[in-house]
Amino acid sequence: MADDTTGQDSAPAGVRAIALYGVGLINGSLGLALRARGFDGRIIGIGRRECTLQLAANRGAIDSYATTPDTVAEADLVIVGTPVDVTASVLGDLAEHARPATIFSDVGSVKAGVVAECAARLPAIRFVGAHPIAGSERSSVEHARAELFDGAKCIVTTGPQADHGATAVVRWMWEFVGADVMAVPPDAHDVLLAASSHLPHVVATALMHVVCGKAYDGVPAARLGGAGLRDTTRVALGSSDIWTPIVTSNSEPVAAMVERMADELAQLASRLRRGDVTAVGAWLERGRELRAEITDDI
Amino acid sequence: MADDTTGQDSAPAGVRAIALYGVGLINGSLGLALRARGFDGRIIGIGRRECTLQLAANRGAIDSYATTPDTVAEADLVIVGTPVDVTASVLGDLAEHARPATIFSDVGSVKAGVVAECAARLPAIRFVGAHPIAGSERSSVEHARAELFDGAKCIVTTGPQADHGATAVVRWMWEFVGADVMAVPPDAHDVLLAASSHLPHVVATALMHVVCGKAYDGVPAARLGGAGLRDTTRVALGSSDIWTPIVTSNSEPVAAMVERMADELAQLASRLRRGDVTAVGAWLERGRELRAEITDDI
Repeated sequence: MADDTTGQDSAPAGVRAIALYGVGLINGSLGLALRARGFDGRIIGIGRRECTLQLAANRGAIDSYATTPDTVAEADLVIVGTPVDVTASVLGDLAEHARPATIFSDVGSVKAGVVAECAARLPAIRFVGAHPIAGSERSSVEHARAELFDGAKCIVTTGPQADHGATAVVRWMWEFVGADVMAVPPDAHDVLLAASSHLPHVVATALMHVVCGKAYDGVPAARLGGAGLRDTTRVALGSSDIWTPIVTSNSEPVAAMVERMADELAQLASRLRRGDVTAVGAWLERGRELRAEITDDI
Repeated sequence: MADDTTGQDSAPAGVRAIALYGVGLINGSLGLALRARGFDGRIIGIGRRECTLQLAANRGAIDSYATTPDTVAEADLVIVGTPVDVTASVLGDLAEHARPATIFSDVGSVKAGVVAECAARLPAIRFVGAHPIAGSERSSVEHARAELFDGAKCIVTTGPQADHGATAVVRWMWEFVGADVMAVPPDAHDVLLAASSHLPHVVATALMHVVCGKAYDGVPAARLGGAGLRDTTRVALGSSDIWTPIVTSNSEPVAAMVERMADELAQLASRLRRGDVTAVGAWLERGRELRAEITDDI
């Protein structure tokens, strides 16, 4: 996976200013991480809400900020951190003010749509899709931290139309802040993330609907939950403003994984109802082994 | 819920020696907690494996140990901490050696079966079912800690045939080690725990089977999982020797909850397939609200 930018610890020629559009948890952490690791160029915040930008500046995640897109003219690299359903439209607005050489990227959890939309509607833009697999159920810049990407996987999309110069710059940036960069085509990304991230999110949400619907003689089941229920459902605390666009813009792969999960559970219910202790035990043990195998990986 | 034993901080008359049968995470933590909170009677470990008992003694969870059941004659209170499918048979073995006044309890995650079996097969035994809702995916005494029950819910089973003197002693013990004791009938316990604990466990296991079955062009989906996948599936690391008896001895309530979960997911898949962004968004937001409501409770 290494290429000639791997391990490079100063910015590639020309990257003297990075603009972060939408300074939430991810872009806020990116700003903090760039600074902490010694990026000596400018970091500019752009967004709609001045109070958020002010907070980001106070925390040191950005050097300056603006609420108007024309400020993007000052940036060599622009990272869009918005809900995935508005990324393409934000890129369109920003592109009008950017210089031709400016490189754009994003941090969204769904990649095929935005990559295709850019290719179709914004063919002149130098866009590279990216997705740092890091985050938390808390989306605001106040929870941002410089270490968020340490050792995290970061996918940079690849494909026959890739802009290799722009890709090298985006790769450099994520490696610079500590991420382990992988090149994956946009469609593959979406199928893999439907399984590894979008499915766990909707499963946690479904658990809350099911568990909170259960009570017995006035005692709500959720009241008897321990650390198991708490951890299994933590991600359901994620903002629905962020997650609704993710799962609905990746609806086919997510629906397929959700149906696969429903089927797995239906099979378990059937084994339980026919009292097949051996099959249930083997299924639990295999699940334990699979979980033990991935512990160090994720 | 308060009764006349609440807040009592010295052992009720007659509890001078407590035997812990099966010294794993729960009974090991109980021994450490009794000692840390100032219980000045004896704590005796009983079990099959001398090396485990020796480790428990080295850690200070027990004062002495034995691998033979006759040692139970020295105990006023006996807590059985074994997989739930052998609890009743262990109680039968121990009862032969106990004094008539000896009180027995357990710590299992399923209550109806063991309470009914004791009433039917061991009518002379002073048995009170209990379940401290605390634990971890790690089951061994080496992970035991004195704080495990601080603020944890602990269910003590109740019902028309309850032995009130024995119940007061078991309540005392769990409150003494910091737990918040609730009295719940055995059947209600099993339905509530099927939702709050057994369902999250099997859902986490099902997630591992589904996610680990997915790969794309040689990249396994689990490799791209972040903290979300890790937390949602942590409980799947639990020993299948402990969890197989739990879910199969509570098969009817667990199967019902699993079917309810499969149905919830099938409905979501249908909303995704018909592109109903509004319905998916409302469902995610309601799940988030439910999770936010219980955060402080569990």
